[in-house]
Amino acid sequence: MKQQTPKTAILLMHCPDQKGIISYTTQFIHENQGNIIYLDQYVDREEGRFFMRIEFDIDSFLIPEDKIRDYIETLLAKKFDMTLKLYFNTQKPRMALFVTKMSHCLYDILSRTDSGELQAEIPMIVSNHQHLKKVADKFKIPFFHFEMNKENKKEQEEAQLKLMKEHNIDFVVLARYMQILSPEFIKSYPDKIINIHHSFLPAFVGAKPYHAAHERGVKIIGATSHYVTSDLDAGPIIEQDVAKVSHKDTVKELIRKGKDLEKIVLSRALYQHVNRKLMTYKNKTIIFD
Amino acid sequence: MKQQTPKTAILLMHCPDQKGIISYTTQFIHENQGNIIYLDQYVDREEGRFFMRIEFDIDSFLIPEDKIRDYIETLLAKKFDMTLKLYFNTQKPRMALFVTKMSHCLYDILSRTDSGELQAEIPMIVSNHQHLKKVADKFKIPFFHFEMNKENKKEQEEAQLKLMKEHNIDFVVLARYMQILSPEFIKSYPDKIINIHHSFLPAFVGAKPYHAAHERGVKIIGATSHYVTSDLDAGPIIEQDVAKVSHKDTVKELIRKGKDLEKIVLSRALYQHVNRKLMTYKNKTIIFD
Amino acid sequence: MKQQTPKTAILLMHCPDQKGIISYTTQFIHENQGNIIYLDQYVDREEGRFFMRIEFDIDSFLIPEDKIRDYIETLLAKKFDMTLKLYFNTQKPRMALFVTKMSHCLYDILSRTDSGELQAEIPMIVSNHQHLKKVADKFKIPFFHFEMNKENKKEQEEAQLKLMKEHNIDFVVLARYMQILSPEFIKSYPDKIINIHHSFLPAFVGAKPYHAAHERGVKIIGATSHYVTSDLDAGPIIEQDVAKVSHKDTVKELIRKGKDLEKIVLSRALYQHVNRKLMTYKNKTIIFD
Amino acid sequence: MKQQTPKTAILLMHCPDQKGIISYTTQFIHENQGNIIYLDQYVDREEGRFFMRIEFDIDSFLIPEDKIRDYIETLLAKKFDMTLKLYFNTQKPRMALFVTKMSHCLYDILSRTDSGELQAEIPMIVSNHQHLKKVADKFKIPFFHFEMNKENKKEQEEAQLKLMKEHNIDFVVLARYMQILSPEFIKSYPDKIINIHHSFLPAFVGAKPYHAAHERGVKIIGATSHYVTSDLDAGPIIEQDVAKVSHKDTVKELIRKGKDLEKIVLSRALYQHVNRKLMTYKNKTIIFD
Repeated sequence: MKQQTPKTAILLMHCPDQKGIISYTTQFIHENQGNIIYLDQYVDREEGRFFMRIEFDIDSFLIPEDKIRDYIETLLAKKFDMTLKLYFNTQKPRMALFVTKMSHCLYDILSRTDSGELQAEIPMIVSNHQHLKKVADKFKIPFFHFEMNKENKKEQEEAQLKLMKEHNIDFVVLARYMQILSPEFIKSYPDKIINIHHSFLPAFVGAKPYHAAHERGVKIIGATSHYVTSDLDAGPIIEQDVAKVSHKDTVKELIRKGKDLEKIVLSRALYQHVNRKLMTYKNKTIIFD
Repeated sequence: MKQQTPKTAILLMHCPDQKGIISYTTQFIHENQGNIIYLDQYVDREEGRFFMRIEFDIDSFLIPEDKIRDYIETLLAKKFDMTLKLYFNTQKPRMALFVTKMSHCLYDILSRTDSGELQAEIPMIVSNHQHLKKVADKFKIPFFHFEMNKENKKEQEEAQLKLMKEHNIDFVVLARYMQILSPEFIKSYPDKIINIHHSFLPAFVGAKPYHAAHERGVKIIGATSHYVTSDLDAGPIIEQDVAKVSHKDTVKELIRKGKDLEKIVLSRALYQHVNRKLMTYKNKTIIFD
Repeated sequence: MKQQTPKTAILLMHCPDQKGIISYTTQFIHENQGNIIYLDQYVDREEGRFFMRIEFDIDSFLIPEDKIRDYIETLLAKKFDMTLKLYFNTQKPRMALFVTKMSHCLYDILSRTDSGELQAEIPMIVSNHQHLKKVADKFKIPFFHFEMNKENKKEQEEAQLKLMKEHNIDFVVLARYMQILSPEFIKSYPDKIINIHHSFLPAFVGAKPYHAAHERGVKIIGATSHYVTSDLDAGPIIEQDVAKVSHKDTVKELIRKGKDLEKIVLSRALYQHVNRKLMTYKNKTIIFD
Repeated sequence: MKQQTPKTAILLMHCPDQKGIISYTTQFIHENQGNIIYLDQYVDREEGRFFMRIEFDIDSFLIPEDKIRDYIETLLAKKFDMTLKLYFNTQKPRMALFVTKMSHCLYDILSRTDSGELQAEIPMIVSNHQHLKKVADKFKIPFFHFEMNKENKKEQEEAQLKLMKEHNIDFVVLARYMQILSPEFIKSYPDKIINIHHSFLPAFVGAKPYHAAHERGVKIIGATSHYVTSDLDAGPIIEQDVAKVSHKDTVKELIRKGKDLEKIVLSRALYQHVNRKLMTYKNKTIIFD
């Protein structure tokens, strides 16, 4: 960890499956004196689709950083009909963190950014309640309170979006934010809003999943992290995990045990997102971990 | 294992929660020179209901085996308004095993009864296809083929029930039996038909859950063993387990990986049922393991 | 949660297995107008030992709180040769938290006490380094720095013990504290020092278990929380969990993935300890959860 | 499944990491009209070693099947200093199955080959006891009884090896075979003897691991499948899994619960081996699943 971390570019791409993608792309990097650090690829044979993640050292790259995207578009993307994203490891993604009253996910994320495990900036915390301001204060992160009700939802969301623009927000994390976002809000951050739902989706969509799980008498409970789309709890799933429970567990116990699942599952999803290890395609995620 | 296993009675009971149930019941057993081997109890505080399982050695019991139920009814059940079941470890429960074409659960159950791990008799295997007759033959178990279609369902089920009566069947196991039982059939064996469903219920009820799981892009798959009620896949859950999957898993891979879940989850449920370790109450199971 | 929590006493006891323990004990409580909220019991048949945890409401108890222990000693413990512990839910246990440089377990514990999930007081944080003072400061908990080396170990430990006495410390948590305690220190807090070891014990005892796990090529890593005894990493195990890893995981990745295990496993152990749900007997734990 | 499965070649290789391996190898396959179905690669950066598995359709391959190895050796292996293995999906590997008295792994393997899930031939079952002959008979597989004692070990192993040669055995499975193989025997099948050990290695090496686990009071038990080397239970680990246990589990219960782990873990390892999805390097496995 003491040596200088090299500057890298991360290319995430998918395109129709065809011959020569890997060799063509790797050759492009080698010829320009990039050094490939990771290459992961996956072919979805049913869909006939090729997915690839390449991370390459650009310390000696012949193409200047701000031109790399142009060159890839021109020389690679058109040839193979690629859909692509390009990132640089020097740019930490900027997260807006939305919370309501429960602190477990919030603390978990803040402790990870604080220790450097999660390489993201958190310039703002948003909440529809005041409860967690004291946590934001501990970490010296600006806390914005937006009271939400049926009447003011539209204008409050617009104010939130404006504020997020001012803070150059790259992505949004709903860390047990107990509000349903409007389709307009969601459209502003496509595949960039990550939610944690407290059930193993698609079971127990919507409100009070632990109560529903208790009522149904399940022997496992779960948590699901997913990208938010306009369909409630139906966006691309990033990460899921479960825990065993028994007839002895009351709803209160399910909630307590579920909290550990929620924070771990959400943080794993954030790690993949922040390290640009995942792509979405047709409402699913492809994760290169 | 070489010593003589003692003869035991197993009492499963529930009643309104009230003082003195344990002491009254244990005193009854002690006074009649029974020796308690296991006592497990559980109170559902929301429901105000008390559940208990007692297994006691009756080798020196003063009340003859065939009178024990009478005495318990008279001296205990009435006093506490108990709902009870009484079993003896010398009576192996008799299972009717229903299968279609897939052999993994069938083999798993037969290998466990063959080794003595699962203390059940299997006097008959029933199928709507001929495929698995060869497996039944290997284990020298009578195999009955009932072709099923919309027209003959009622009479075929009646013939099955008649045959089961002749074989003194205690309970039914649907080991990936791809037929929906009629409410009449189900009523004949209440809380005595165990099914394995190839999803973590309540997600993916009904047909083709692995296809649905693949379509939804879940990161875990599961299996659920439950008692069959007239609501499809909605009866009391006995056992569930899950396995991690990824975007790389095709439907075919999910089916392959799911098979291991199905057979293990079903066999765990059978173990609890056969050893009289579970009770049902209001569409849930209480398991004393 | 809004209603008044009742005042309860928690009795943890074990004794030679014999008839009448449950009925005698429950009668004692009922006669004195205590109301049993939880009763869990377990018999270790090999050892011939009976274990019980009873939690009972003492709001209307006839025996005054400060006399309950005396009465139990006199009326129950002697009769059955019980080893017992008695707690009251109104007394929050007081924890001394020992850390070195890694913050993940520290943050996890502090966020749980902060939210009220973990009902413990933390009057002091001790460390052999200054790194985590800033975390203690965030939560406004006194931080004590004890530099440790071979020469000063004895006197520093004595100073720590003195400080702990002054703060009325009930138990000690080693939250990735990278120092081996002396037998003298351990003797001062028997069954009251909880450690988190970063392997599934008994595999990889001692230093650098992730390096050893990587070297061995294991496919699972684990974490173990245990009471500290004078045998290194050999005390009674409270809680363990594991995570799947693969050949792709470097030591650095194992360390990152292991952190989540460590903090969850340690916090689960703390929850059981703080809620007086566990007993130790012959280097093992009995957990009533 | 109804369409004709294509004939494929499977190349497993590793070599010093260097530029051009993928493009060179894939070009070789394409130029000769092979069609790549799967390509998985992995770079161990610490070791500076490149690993790859390529499965390619050879129905229209220009090089005849029996010359492919020669061509690869000449054109690829020398250039990159590859260590390689080449298989064809039409050649089912032939397994010698070694057992003692416990039937659970044996039944599990036989049911999988019987259903076609495990694509292996089992021309012989070997045992040091007669107990499981009846199982072999059910599946009509020749059963060979070799009584083993200290005096006859050397000659019995030689007789076993001779018999295995006559049956063209490719690999050996120790399905709870309670004998330690001699170094000579092991040398005859390097990386081709798969054992199931009933603990999460490296914990509880050697005999009676469930007794040791019970004695230690662990909260998880495990099973490990590994290639056999002359170091006892220290060969490359293929697969591991665990199950939660509690203080209530006696040794007998650990054994019962462990059996399910053992058979599932062994069968998963066999699946990877039989489908040529794994390589060994420096006492570790690389698995492309």
